[in-house]
Amino acid sequence: MTQTAPLLDLSADQKDRLDRQIDFLREVDKLKGVLRASRLLDDSRCENSAEHSWHIMLYVAVLGEHAAPEVDVSRVIRMLLIHDIVEIDAGDAPIHGNVDHEAMALKEAAAADRLFNLLPADQAREFRALWDEFEAAQSADAQFAKAIDRTQAPVGNLYSGGGTWIEYNVTMDQLDTRVGTPVNRGAPVLWAWLRPRLAAFFARA
Amino acid sequence: MTQTAPLLDLSADQKDRLDRQIDFLREVDKLKGVLRASRLLDDSRCENSAEHSWHIMLYVAVLGEHAAPEVDVSRVIRMLLIHDIVEIDAGDAPIHGNVDHEAMALKEAAAADRLFNLLPADQAREFRALWDEFEAAQSADAQFAKAIDRTQAPVGNLYSGGGTWIEYNVTMDQLDTRVGTPVNRGAPVLWAWLRPRLAAFFARA
Repeated sequence: MTQTAPLLDLSADQKDRLDRQIDFLREVDKLKGVLRASRLLDDSRCENSAEHSWHIMLYVAVLGEHAAPEVDVSRVIRMLLIHDIVEIDAGDAPIHGNVDHEAMALKEAAAADRLFNLLPADQAREFRALWDEFEAAQSADAQFAKAIDRTQAPVGNLYSGGGTWIEYNVTMDQLDTRVGTPVNRGAPVLWAWLRPRLAAFFARA
Repeated sequence: MTQTAPLLDLSADQKDRLDRQIDFLREVDKLKGVLRASRLLDDSRCENSAEHSWHIMLYVAVLGEHAAPEVDVSRVIRMLLIHDIVEIDAGDAPIHGNVDHEAMALKEAAAADRLFNLLPADQAREFRALWDEFEAAQSADAQFAKAIDRTQAPVGNLYSGGGTWIEYNVTMDQLDTRVGTPVNRGAPVLWAWLRPRLAAFFARA
């Protein structure tokens, strides 16, 4: 075996941090096995939460210009990078499903405790704070993140014949509440584009 | 149908930009159907390029502290967000496979032309420049991005009995070239952690 370039000498602290960081990065592979109610646009299978996370980060990179001026788009991308990791333990709660939101919040908090604490303590705190901010949906960054998280599935349903709306018997009134409220709060330009299309779909349905 | 909050009035230009942006965001859904040679850590199926992109962005968020000081971690995350989109048309070229790299580069450039140009022209140019920078692997950001892109599959193989190394009859010498060269260039701390583990695996194999 050849190794031409000399290897750096790592300190014990560097080694320990890398061990914990890689342990976390291996564990989160499981997010690829968490299935959502929504299906891919080609209708081949359900979407998983890892590829969903990638997709909505791209939504933010593309649609960031429509956010309020105080929104930090790179920070929103990081928020969405980690926003679903708790689902590894807690599972996904479908927006149109019959979910006990209090029980779910407890399961997700326990999941955040276990998963983020695989990281070195300073990073665990940093990731947890970002996830807590997302969940609280009070900051401008979190409200834009929530708006985008709520937009991707309806856009998919619009262009694939209704998707989960049919399955869950969803009405336009329900969409105004479940989708319109967070999207209009965090990204009113996007809701102004989306709502007439949703209304036209439901008028035809 | 009720719609309580009033809708914003969009300009024709805003509508046109949103139409193009959403068209692009629908088209890239196809990246979830592009399969890589590597399998998930639970060995249930092959990994797709969308969830792989999510995973290595998380690698960057966690391991960014080991990058050179001039690396802009948020910019690397954006680079990896879009780095595989060309695979929608060009497919994935397995690192240990028998690939005609010149033909692949042409296919990928044609894919970049088609896909990024779905976006408004200014964004198409911006995304294309970022992808070109990643491919050229000359800037500090691109070299760190490449290092991380080359790290995730070997870490997976290490902890799942060898994965694609077995399938493609890979040797430690080949890993030193195909993985060691780019990882040591962009993230020498990471290679100093990874190489002894790879060498121990191949010494046992």
